[in-house]
Amino acid sequence: MKNISILGVTGSIGTQALDIIRNKENKVNLIGVTAHRNFKGLVDIIEEFSPKYIGITDKKCYEAIKEYCERENKQVNLFGGEEALEKVATLKEIDTVLTSVVGIAGLKPTIKAIEAKKNIALANKETLVVAGDIVMAKAKENGVKILPVDSEHGAIFQCIQGNEKKDINKIILTASGGPFRGKTRDDLKEITPKEALKHPKWNMGRKISIDSSTLVNKGLEVIEAHFLFGVSYDEIEVIVHPQSIVHSMVEYKDGSIIAQLGSTDMRLPIQYALSYPDRRTAIADKLDFKTVSSLTFEQPDINTFRCLELAFKAGKLGGNMPAIYNGANEIAVELFLDARIKYLQIEEIIEDAMNKFPHVKNPDLQQVLDIDKQVREYVLKRYV
Amino acid sequence: MKNISILGVTGSIGTQALDIIRNKENKVNLIGVTAHRNFKGLVDIIEEFSPKYIGITDKKCYEAIKEYCERENKQVNLFGGEEALEKVATLKEIDTVLTSVVGIAGLKPTIKAIEAKKNIALANKETLVVAGDIVMAKAKENGVKILPVDSEHGAIFQCIQGNEKKDINKIILTASGGPFRGKTRDDLKEITPKEALKHPKWNMGRKISIDSSTLVNKGLEVIEAHFLFGVSYDEIEVIVHPQSIVHSMVEYKDGSIIAQLGSTDMRLPIQYALSYPDRRTAIADKLDFKTVSSLTFEQPDINTFRCLELAFKAGKLGGNMPAIYNGANEIAVELFLDARIKYLQIEEIIEDAMNKFPHVKNPDLQQVLDIDKQVREYVLKRYV
Repeated sequence: MKNISILGVTGSIGTQALDIIRNKENKVNLIGVTAHRNFKGLVDIIEEFSPKYIGITDKKCYEAIKEYCERENKQVNLFGGEEALEKVATLKEIDTVLTSVVGIAGLKPTIKAIEAKKNIALANKETLVVAGDIVMAKAKENGVKILPVDSEHGAIFQCIQGNEKKDINKIILTASGGPFRGKTRDDLKEITPKEALKHPKWNMGRKISIDSSTLVNKGLEVIEAHFLFGVSYDEIEVIVHPQSIVHSMVEYKDGSIIAQLGSTDMRLPIQYALSYPDRRTAIADKLDFKTVSSLTFEQPDINTFRCLELAFKAGKLGGNMPAIYNGANEIAVELFLDARIKYLQIEEIIEDAMNKFPHVKNPDLQQVLDIDKQVREYVLKRYV
Repeated sequence: MKNISILGVTGSIGTQALDIIRNKENKVNLIGVTAHRNFKGLVDIIEEFSPKYIGITDKKCYEAIKEYCERENKQVNLFGGEEALEKVATLKEIDTVLTSVVGIAGLKPTIKAIEAKKNIALANKETLVVAGDIVMAKAKENGVKILPVDSEHGAIFQCIQGNEKKDINKIILTASGGPFRGKTRDDLKEITPKEALKHPKWNMGRKISIDSSTLVNKGLEVIEAHFLFGVSYDEIEVIVHPQSIVHSMVEYKDGSIIAQLGSTDMRLPIQYALSYPDRRTAIADKLDFKTVSSLTFEQPDINTFRCLELAFKAGKLGGNMPAIYNGANEIAVELFLDARIKYLQIEEIIEDAMNKFPHVKNPDLQQVLDIDKQVREYVLKRYV
């Protein structure tokens, strides 16, 4: 039995994780949850799962849930405000935290959870992108496992089981290529948020859908892979695989490549992260290889989708540069979704921020959080 | 350092294994070798590797090598006759035997090696096909490892590392489809040995090339997989993959599929079997994924290539039936290569033998060897 908290329980990953918990065979106990301000979602979760601890960051929503619990006579411990995430992430009763909060808000509570010796099922990209050095050092120091939840890193994690780090030659991250694969820069000029939100293969949240279309998502994954698996950027290759059936691969020094394949259902990697090292019966539809006729592969078009190369550049520079890349992108995506900038300006904003802010080699946590804030303010000021 | 003997050192697998030994980084010591009657091949090996023990089954060749060694003043222990293989397979100085003898001749020395607690790098198909129950029980009893050397089982072996047997849902064996994929039964009627020997992807010996064209080779691999990995025949699926880049796959109960990919060079699986659990630097050209544009998959054409279904049938019946299948096929292939029967008669002969001989459920080793002999005699008598 695993006792877990889910940070960001009402989001895309959070709600899919609930499907894993629903199935008793998975042996996962939901002890604590957090949400920002999704009242209805939280009420449903209280009714179905009766979590003992709930954290709510939005003040109004906190009050509403408090009132609801009193009225309905629910035995539950509520936490409000900024500290709510940390409280739920460090509960005595839990051994694992699923961090599915979106954005940099996930960083601090993840570090607190690691310090409290909780294993991390990591679905929050920013944690490693922004503070990979700090987080991985903390994990090592506290002897906790960082279990990747997204399909690519989950795949790589499976491909290295039973193998040794020293034998890894390179990591081959697959990318669907997003909805605009094959398009020219000219085609991209007038892309609307609606078009960019339509991912061909994966059902995901809004921000990650845009990131997937710009290849920023793959860039962030490259940086994550670097920290998670301790490989250099020259040992990471991105290959476009539109069918999204091969979720990633690892090449070993003897020339052998181990790949993980499966259906495009996020519940598969979530389940593995929550059951590891065991496997449980499939909750999602299995891939039927009889229906797979062709798997295709091609090089990413780095001239059209420049954000991927920018991520490699930010990663290789290291230090505060991935945080700058990430912060600039996050605001740019918000602005694009609000139709306040053009699609190609996302890339322009990232590159501008990377040039604008000085490179700091070994920032501490506060410096990382500061640069993130400064980048956001700069982008907002300059582009709105 | 691994100290090994190679049975059948002058054959296709044997000579490729020498390439592994040549590279000192692989840390394999060649202590003993056997050959049937390839004088020139043995002399070259003596000159290059100075093995301490040599077994030669052909009497004339034995005498010739003996004379050569005396004349050249070589310090070597020679074994002749039928016992030569067993002697070299059970040497005190070795820990692993690579069994790359072709045919049922490999069975007895393999069993002797297991009884002498040597790990087996298994390249001899007949060992498991003909006596899988006996061999696997002996291996368990003696605590020795059976390390598969062919590309498919080597792939599966890699795909199960770090996983548990109970979590395997099924094994997906890939098949190139052979040189006649897409042909009709009418097309197959007049196939010549020369046409059947041309394998599109793998450079292999003559017998295995024919077996690959009839899908008998895949049938034998299905039976091997059953014994090696302890899965039922319903948990084994064959899928045609003409590019031969995915060497096989394992589906787990959570729906995750782990695949092993690589270039089509037999030295890759030989190297892994000889270095396991370590990996060594690639000796063969690595697969460059940048050159892979498409991997295709299709169902095997079991109506045209009936030998695959016959293998499943023989395997499911078990007992002496796989030995009957194998013995009939071995003689049929010889007859076909000598242009004494037609191509489609290979299948006819296998089916005839399976119907002709009574099914024995739990044969002992002698019964297996007897049925093999009887089947061969029957086929020769009836079809020549």
